[in-house]
Amino acid sequence: MSDVLKALGDILEERKGASADSSYVASLYHKGLNKILEKVGEEATETILAAKDAERSGENSDVIYETADLWFHTLVALAQLGERPEAVINELARRFNMSGLEEKASRTEK
Amino acid sequence: MSDVLKALGDILEERKGASADSSYVASLYHKGLNKILEKVGEEATETILAAKDAERSGENSDVIYETADLWFHTLVALAQLGERPEAVINELARRFNMSGLEEKASRTEK
Amino acid sequence: MSDVLKALGDILEERKGASADSSYVASLYHKGLNKILEKVGEEATETILAAKDAERSGENSDVIYETADLWFHTLVALAQLGERPEAVINELARRFNMSGLEEKASRTEK
Amino acid sequence: MSDVLKALGDILEERKGASADSSYVASLYHKGLNKILEKVGEEATETILAAKDAERSGENSDVIYETADLWFHTLVALAQLGERPEAVINELARRFNMSGLEEKASRTEK
Repeated sequence: MSDVLKALGDILEERKGASADSSYVASLYHKGLNKILEKVGEEATETILAAKDAERSGENSDVIYETADLWFHTLVALAQLGERPEAVINELARRFNMSGLEEKASRTEK
Repeated sequence: MSDVLKALGDILEERKGASADSSYVASLYHKGLNKILEKVGEEATETILAAKDAERSGENSDVIYETADLWFHTLVALAQLGERPEAVINELARRFNMSGLEEKASRTEK
Repeated sequence: MSDVLKALGDILEERKGASADSSYVASLYHKGLNKILEKVGEEATETILAAKDAERSGENSDVIYETADLWFHTLVALAQLGERPEAVINELARRFNMSGLEEKASRTEK
Repeated sequence: MSDVLKALGDILEERKGASADSSYVASLYHKGLNKILEKVGEEATETILAAKDAERSGENSDVIYETADLWFHTLVALAQLGERPEAVINELARRFNMSGLEEKASRTEK
C-alpha cells in the first residue's frame, strides 16, 4: 500500500521535466495549477455522483474508480506545489495517533 | 504508509456499530450518505482554495491538511458503501502497473 | 432582466424534443442528468478559481463569465427535471420578502 | 423577475458597510472571499445531491431551494468583488442574442 503511493509520488516527480506531449501528467503540469484544480473539482463531482448511484445500485466499482481519480489529481496538484503523497499520509497518521510515513521511511532507510 | 491507510480502514470499520455521539465518524454514518458527500464537496472546495493560496504564499501546510480531510471523507463515504481504503490503492496500482495491496497483504499474511 | 431568464427558460423548453446534434443544450439532455450535473460541478469549480484570480488581478470579466456558465447549467438541470428559471427567482424573492415571479407573470397575463 | 435580482443586488450593496453581526450577508463579507467561495462550493454540492434525489423522488422543491442558495452565494461573491447581478444576466443575454439588462434598464429609466 505504502509502496503504491510512494511509487506514484516518484512517477509524478519524474514527469516534471518532461515535454507536455510525453504523458497526461506532463500535459497537466504544462497547463498549470488552475487546470489541475479544475480536474480536482470535476473528479470530486464525479465521485459524489458515483456514490449516489452506488447507493441505489449496490455496485461500487465506479465510485472506487472516481475516488482513485480524485486522489490522483490531488497528488498532481500537490506535486506541482512541491509536495509528495507522504505528506497526506503523515497528516492522516497524525490525526489518528498513528506513526506516520517519514518516520517509517527514515527507519527503513537507516 | 500502507499501515496508515489500513489502520484507518480498521477504525472506520470499527465505528460502524457505534452510537452517533461516540465519535465524529459515527455521527457521520448516522447522518447518512448525503451528509458525508456534502463533506466531500466542502473539502474538495477547501483543497482548491488552499492550493490557490499556496500558489501565492509558497506555504503548503494548509493544502496538505485539506487534502487529508478530503481523502478522509471519501474513505468515510466508501466505508458507508462497504469498501475499504485498499480498494482505492488497488485501483491506483492497476493504472500504473504496480502490484496492488491485496496481493501484498496476502503475501505479508502468509 | 426578467425577460432574459424567461426567454432562456423558453429556449431550454424548446430544445427538449430536439435531436442530440441540433444544439449544445439538446446534446446535454440526451447525455442525461449525471452529465449535466458534472457540468454544474465543473462550472462551480471554475467560478471559484476565477474569483480567486479576480481577487488578485482586480479583473472580473472571467468570474462573471463563469458564474453565467454555472447558472446556465443549473437551469439545464432544472429544465431536465421539469422546472423553469422562474422557480429559482420566486425562491429568492420569498427569502427577501419580495414579490416573486409567478405573481408578476400572472398579473401581466391577465 | 428582473426586479427580484435588482432588489437583491441593492440589498447586497447596502449590507457592505454593516457590522458583521447585523446580518448573514454582512457576516460573510467580514469573513472574506474564501469563506464565501466555500459556501459556493457547498451549495453546488447540495444542488447536485438534491438533483439526484429529485431524479428518484420526482419532488423538486429541494433542488429549487438549493439552486437559489447557490445563485445567492455566487451573488455575494460577485458583490464582494464589486459586481452586481445585472452582470450575470447581461452575460447570459449576450450568449443567446437577447437584449440585456443595462440596455433595458437605461431604456426604462429614460
